[in-house]
Amino acid sequence: MEIPPVVIDRLPLYARALSGLDAEGRDVVSSQELGDRLGVTPAQIRKDLSYFGRFGKQGRGYNVRKLLDELHRILGLDRQWKMALVGVGKLGRAILGYEGFAPLGFRIVEAFDADPSRIGGQVNSLTVKDAKYLETVLKDNPVDVGIVAVPAEIAQKMIDALVGCGVRAILNYAPIAAHVPPHVQLKRIEPVLALQSMTYYLKNQRRPAPART
Amino acid sequence: MEIPPVVIDRLPLYARALSGLDAEGRDVVSSQELGDRLGVTPAQIRKDLSYFGRFGKQGRGYNVRKLLDELHRILGLDRQWKMALVGVGKLGRAILGYEGFAPLGFRIVEAFDADPSRIGGQVNSLTVKDAKYLETVLKDNPVDVGIVAVPAEIAQKMIDALVGCGVRAILNYAPIAAHVPPHVQLKRIEPVLALQSMTYYLKNQRRPAPART
Repeated sequence: MEIPPVVIDRLPLYARALSGLDAEGRDVVSSQELGDRLGVTPAQIRKDLSYFGRFGKQGRGYNVRKLLDELHRILGLDRQWKMALVGVGKLGRAILGYEGFAPLGFRIVEAFDADPSRIGGQVNSLTVKDAKYLETVLKDNPVDVGIVAVPAEIAQKMIDALVGCGVRAILNYAPIAAHVPPHVQLKRIEPVLALQSMTYYLKNQRRPAPART
Repeated sequence: MEIPPVVIDRLPLYARALSGLDAEGRDVVSSQELGDRLGVTPAQIRKDLSYFGRFGKQGRGYNVRKLLDELHRILGLDRQWKMALVGVGKLGRAILGYEGFAPLGFRIVEAFDADPSRIGGQVNSLTVKDAKYLETVLKDNPVDVGIVAVPAEIAQKMIDALVGCGVRAILNYAPIAAHVPPHVQLKRIEPVLALQSMTYYLKNQRRPAPART
């Protein structure tokens, strides 16, 4: 059965909320409480989870630990994923220094750049390799995920190179609408799109004006 | 009428696709073609736009320039927005150097940090100010958007300070589920959530195995 991508996108949110409950020592949670924490309706949660089997008992709620383990298994978060970073400029360095990846099983194992002044340098205990050899390096040591943090002009070329090496998941920080074949997942980190939907509210939900409106 | 947030979130995507068409010199586009470019159904596009009035004529398609202007007006993208950045570490510097903001009307006008070694330094022609004076500075020179790029431990405190200065839109890069009052918009840039939904596909859509599966 084909599961809608929006459902898949919500599962990590459920897993994160359950991790929090688990850390608080909670054993059981209702779909109502989980929904309240996430701003999702309980019906939505029950429907999303129903794609994957039966969880929880009517009126008893979900076993936190069991559902969390199950979600980790479904999402493939019960294992380590290797990532290659392309682009070690300011953004690339920030990504290499980001502490949120490793605890969740995502490890950057290779870093590439085309700038001679960066090649051979050490960043966060990785040696920056020449982007020219990306294919050679990744064919011998395959990675699961490619992270693209290069300027817009060369982003598609780097994405094509990663796809050519068999990478099937790409996290794209470059501000382009990149193309990938259907078997490749691509997610774009888009601060501008996030800003552009917030301004709608800034514009339309003005605070009460001091005088007449 | 309350417009669903998911609709608002899609409008910047429509605007971006229309910008592309406009740049290509196109005058008219059908909801079918627009939908094909974005992976959205034409019915979805027509429904989303219907919240804001009548655009396009049956069987004639949309006037690209007119719809684009209208979307810019609706989203508040026909003006400049001032932003303050909190946190000028590696990530903050990458954000300051990001070239995608300015062309779309988003300008970082203040940068703050709590680290004495960073305060007073120049980054991208801005002088980094002491985060201790954030309230004082922003009360005299209000901004529209706050960008938070500080470590998780102090992110909520900085978000509270921004909200206290009347900032009503926050772009949060810190890996926390932050709390804001209902009149404040908050969007989180979450690379890990993006990765976690891609691994589902990595795990479940294996390439054809070389031998028996």
